[in-house]
Amino acid sequence: MNTFGTRLRLTTFGESHGPAMGGVLDGFPPGVRLDMARLEREMARRRPGADPLTSPRREADRVEILSGFSADGVSLGSPIGFIVRNTGQRSSDYDSLADLYRPNHADYTYERRYGIRDPRGGGRASARETVSWTAAGALAAMWLDTQGVTVQAVVTRVGAVDAGDVFDLYIRKGDRKAPLVVNPSLRAAMEEEVAETRRRGDSVGGRVGCLVTGLPAGIGDPVADKLQARLAMAMMSINGAKAFEYGIGTAAASSLGSDTADSFALDKEGKVLTLTNHSGGIQGGISNGMPVYFSVSFKPTPTIARPLKTLDTGLHPVTMEARGRHDPCIALRGAAVVEAMTRLTIADMILSSR
Amino acid sequence: MNTFGTRLRLTTFGESHGPAMGGVLDGFPPGVRLDMARLEREMARRRPGADPLTSPRREADRVEILSGFSADGVSLGSPIGFIVRNTGQRSSDYDSLADLYRPNHADYTYERRYGIRDPRGGGRASARETVSWTAAGALAAMWLDTQGVTVQAVVTRVGAVDAGDVFDLYIRKGDRKAPLVVNPSLRAAMEEEVAETRRRGDSVGGRVGCLVTGLPAGIGDPVADKLQARLAMAMMSINGAKAFEYGIGTAAASSLGSDTADSFALDKEGKVLTLTNHSGGIQGGISNGMPVYFSVSFKPTPTIARPLKTLDTGLHPVTMEARGRHDPCIALRGAAVVEAMTRLTIADMILSSR
Amino acid sequence: MNTFGTRLRLTTFGESHGPAMGGVLDGFPPGVRLDMARLEREMARRRPGADPLTSPRREADRVEILSGFSADGVSLGSPIGFIVRNTGQRSSDYDSLADLYRPNHADYTYERRYGIRDPRGGGRASARETVSWTAAGALAAMWLDTQGVTVQAVVTRVGAVDAGDVFDLYIRKGDRKAPLVVNPSLRAAMEEEVAETRRRGDSVGGRVGCLVTGLPAGIGDPVADKLQARLAMAMMSINGAKAFEYGIGTAAASSLGSDTADSFALDKEGKVLTLTNHSGGIQGGISNGMPVYFSVSFKPTPTIARPLKTLDTGLHPVTMEARGRHDPCIALRGAAVVEAMTRLTIADMILSSR
Amino acid sequence: MNTFGTRLRLTTFGESHGPAMGGVLDGFPPGVRLDMARLEREMARRRPGADPLTSPRREADRVEILSGFSADGVSLGSPIGFIVRNTGQRSSDYDSLADLYRPNHADYTYERRYGIRDPRGGGRASARETVSWTAAGALAAMWLDTQGVTVQAVVTRVGAVDAGDVFDLYIRKGDRKAPLVVNPSLRAAMEEEVAETRRRGDSVGGRVGCLVTGLPAGIGDPVADKLQARLAMAMMSINGAKAFEYGIGTAAASSLGSDTADSFALDKEGKVLTLTNHSGGIQGGISNGMPVYFSVSFKPTPTIARPLKTLDTGLHPVTMEARGRHDPCIALRGAAVVEAMTRLTIADMILSSR
Repeated sequence: MNTFGTRLRLTTFGESHGPAMGGVLDGFPPGVRLDMARLEREMARRRPGADPLTSPRREADRVEILSGFSADGVSLGSPIGFIVRNTGQRSSDYDSLADLYRPNHADYTYERRYGIRDPRGGGRASARETVSWTAAGALAAMWLDTQGVTVQAVVTRVGAVDAGDVFDLYIRKGDRKAPLVVNPSLRAAMEEEVAETRRRGDSVGGRVGCLVTGLPAGIGDPVADKLQARLAMAMMSINGAKAFEYGIGTAAASSLGSDTADSFALDKEGKVLTLTNHSGGIQGGISNGMPVYFSVSFKPTPTIARPLKTLDTGLHPVTMEARGRHDPCIALRGAAVVEAMTRLTIADMILSSR
Repeated sequence: MNTFGTRLRLTTFGESHGPAMGGVLDGFPPGVRLDMARLEREMARRRPGADPLTSPRREADRVEILSGFSADGVSLGSPIGFIVRNTGQRSSDYDSLADLYRPNHADYTYERRYGIRDPRGGGRASARETVSWTAAGALAAMWLDTQGVTVQAVVTRVGAVDAGDVFDLYIRKGDRKAPLVVNPSLRAAMEEEVAETRRRGDSVGGRVGCLVTGLPAGIGDPVADKLQARLAMAMMSINGAKAFEYGIGTAAASSLGSDTADSFALDKEGKVLTLTNHSGGIQGGISNGMPVYFSVSFKPTPTIARPLKTLDTGLHPVTMEARGRHDPCIALRGAAVVEAMTRLTIADMILSSR
Repeated sequence: MNTFGTRLRLTTFGESHGPAMGGVLDGFPPGVRLDMARLEREMARRRPGADPLTSPRREADRVEILSGFSADGVSLGSPIGFIVRNTGQRSSDYDSLADLYRPNHADYTYERRYGIRDPRGGGRASARETVSWTAAGALAAMWLDTQGVTVQAVVTRVGAVDAGDVFDLYIRKGDRKAPLVVNPSLRAAMEEEVAETRRRGDSVGGRVGCLVTGLPAGIGDPVADKLQARLAMAMMSINGAKAFEYGIGTAAASSLGSDTADSFALDKEGKVLTLTNHSGGIQGGISNGMPVYFSVSFKPTPTIARPLKTLDTGLHPVTMEARGRHDPCIALRGAAVVEAMTRLTIADMILSSR
Repeated sequence: MNTFGTRLRLTTFGESHGPAMGGVLDGFPPGVRLDMARLEREMARRRPGADPLTSPRREADRVEILSGFSADGVSLGSPIGFIVRNTGQRSSDYDSLADLYRPNHADYTYERRYGIRDPRGGGRASARETVSWTAAGALAAMWLDTQGVTVQAVVTRVGAVDAGDVFDLYIRKGDRKAPLVVNPSLRAAMEEEVAETRRRGDSVGGRVGCLVTGLPAGIGDPVADKLQARLAMAMMSINGAKAFEYGIGTAAASSLGSDTADSFALDKEGKVLTLTNHSGGIQGGISNGMPVYFSVSFKPTPTIARPLKTLDTGLHPVTMEARGRHDPCIALRGAAVVEAMTRLTIADMILSSR
């Protein structure tokens, strides 16, 4: 199905080359003020071309809010319906691909699942779907602001260039209120990695780190709706995500218990904290009041400007060549999507833990 | 809440030191024969002490099936209720811990979530919960057998000893029907790693690899119920899991598109396959007919035989010392639980994709 | 929340005086042809003024389908997003009502639920919501046609004029294929009852009977998703519905077992049927292959052209007088909505029973 | 499936002639004290033979609580698992029925749904299922007590003997705190009606009225989870229920708007009320603070001591004769079940409206 969440529930629709994308965000709390400027900022950030190194193709993704707010922009507790028109649906780019099963794409699997496939493009499997998630995530952010919860995601790796763990970025910041950023020289190296990959007609993978601050202790359930399980589900729903790690992540497999115990202590105001945070802010599926952090690894963009062997829909071997320009690194756009899906998940979990 | 799944739905209950663990497995297809011997084998495998290197403490985990099967052992399409009595509930082991917030345990977070905590032990946060999952997973296996689907999990890493990727283990097997196994010398090295860790009073992390074969193409949904998202949620629900990776996993972040394209081709019988399987058997959230594989990284057991600094429930600093013997490596027992949760998830997804 | 159904799932949005109503119909089977003419017919039927005796106010309810179908109108298995713009949102009709708690309306209860209320009109409580249900129900009908299932609803009572039980109407028809209709003279009497009520500035209740034919045996679940329970939930979701009865309904309370036993027998083709149908086509929550029938009783329209005592939002006693013209009989428009919600429910139950 | 509710969620299992009935009540709030005496009282009340006029057969329905409470009987916020053993499973009573499709029973429909049927008795379709609902409803009552909410159900009709509307019974009581009761002479007439029916080897229908007091305004959702829709679904899930009416119910169809407007006013303490309560305490799907009331009509017990024509499972015509003693009036036992299901639904709706 096409629904995320339990108490804050996003249901989406839209084919990449159909008339519009859109969704319904249900369970949104009443009394929250709509900030259209913020919504537009988030949409711009997700847009291909927003990052200097992604594809220069630009889309004007204007979100139309159809319900859920009063005439003066205060949420009513009712479902928020929204749409984003698909402009410039030049499906001609895809015409030559309609009878191919592209490698690492969903063409073949979608057809096996439903017995039919939208010949106009990626259909529901297209990353264009994330336009709806980004819009809904921006709305979730407006409510999270009222709860003092902040979600930030940054690209922490592109190919061989690794900026390290997201929690270390946070710890190294002098000012806890300052935005999370990657060291400028590493950021420049990442940009060069993407540029070089594009020049070679290739694509490259990457990793996004995400940090949640201000989350109170006691959010999440101990068994079936563990906070990390819900985050993992949300992150692995993002197109191209191949791995989810929280706290020490894969390093856990080679760790010792004596090195990774997060001792409880009191801070100067007498608030409970842990002296280290290998747990990633979650213990037994429930937040402990420390920052929650995790990473998502993304595969390289599957469409590359090189010949690829595959089958056509008649099951004959063919060599395909993609036309047009493509973002070579999914992870770059992924940061905005990771933020959006994290906001939706965290907001849902707070509402579900009441 | 305490429910996993949509069409095949497991709801569990039980505190580790209460009268019984148990659950209801709803949506189980009619006409499947109950194999009690197999159920008991799976239960034995999960049991602490089953693996030569885990704790010698033994529990007799007898599953009592209360419904869902006819008198002669054929499933009726009705919910399967089952219980496992908690024998030897020697909560005395825990008495001295009842007023502590143990590091990396759920004591503090559970209390913040519910305002109350079962003083008799880990309550719902205890790994004893996995006894119910294992029972339900064994039932799911009986139906998966009728569909030709096989799920196997093995420990692929303990601390520094790494047996590599689970799909490589599969590829290297001469006989595709033979069980998935780790090279005996590596297995011996893992056992020595656990033994050495226990001698030092410490604990160590590990990794479990899981392989699903026989799954047809077309299982999973393209947006909100992607097969990998549901698997990630299930795996990150397991106690101590810190990372989920499928296909190339975290290596995706440093990969090139040209190296990781899985070209479609036909096998000798004219069946569609991919020449490589970096995708992990899933494309666009839907199975493509290739083996599905993934890995789960586990943290070291949080309870160790060394002094740890923490707070008591009155928020006073204390140094705690755990008594009793503990499995130093969660991952060892984790393999049986990974298998069980994978079976439940895969069976649910097959039923949901009809 | 705002979602109906499990496998075929309708999520709606929209305030009566906001920009648009709309919804997402998820789980719709692939391969069904879109029939826009039929969709428009159903929308026209629901429209106030469609029935000669309802309010002459007319709305142009054009449904815009935004997703879920290929360019040539075949369903893709993906969610169907649709919107209906609210034209002529003359909220001025409501301005004088914004600070009143109208009797038998949801003004007071909505405000107690959410702490806020849309001052522009009925918001989510408005019967305008049924425009989305009707659109989705028309889509469901297109799939039900492929399954040979037909749903028909007729007004069987207005005030004192009672046309009797809907199953009797069916039995009395000579031609089983002919549409279900009420005797013309009774229909004329109903129309006169409505006209007379309107002349008096009053409103009147009514009853809608609904008949489902072609439903195979075996649809529904034996415990928590009984077919009649799901139908009752859907019917009691319709604005103004006060009672749901299936089979013999309230007459059951005064019946004898010996008079109401539906004996099983074989028809000429050797198909199992029951000789009578007091059960209403459902036994133990599951369809038995006989026609399913039920009735829904509707209250009079709460807004009448007479002074009514109530409180304003400052809790001061006031006497209100409604302006504008109102349908005096909810049940007249109710027939189209009963059909739509029944189609959605039946389609969902068929898909859920697979 | 076999789950009721959203935030307070009951999942049940058990065949009438299997080892045990039982369930899991999930989402139960922490900090509630377990009152075993009350639980046993409710179980005794549901028991056949509890009412002087029902069957003299007696069952010892002891509920074993397996989880969810601390050792000293305080709820932990964790799921409550419970079982009730089936004693005296004399399936011999059913042996002669195993190859029959009994009229108005679920034998035929269950077999069409699942392709298999428990030959030992009614399986999941048996009214024995209500033993689990009653246990869970008693637990819900313990929490509702802490919220000041009271649910009472009484038999208001047996065959021709009609004690009138449940809200009238409430209004006529001098003392608002006194239990809801039917006039003793009418009650005696009902008992005589049942006795006479039994003497004739027949069965008779009845009606149960239910009253909810103490429910605050603001409970329920305006569209898809209307309070009356959820109550209707719960009531129509009860074995033998044929109609649900709330407020004026079926009388709505013949009512005028001018006669049924519930004017808002203030009581002496300045609390909002309505001067009449035709709405049944619910407006727009949300409670308004007035008592909620509704009625459920039950069919006669389908098993009667008279010959009935039907088919056997080989589809041959047969005449069956039931053996053993049977309650001739479902409604008598229905009152306890109506109370239990109402408590579960109301508690769920309160928790869902937070």
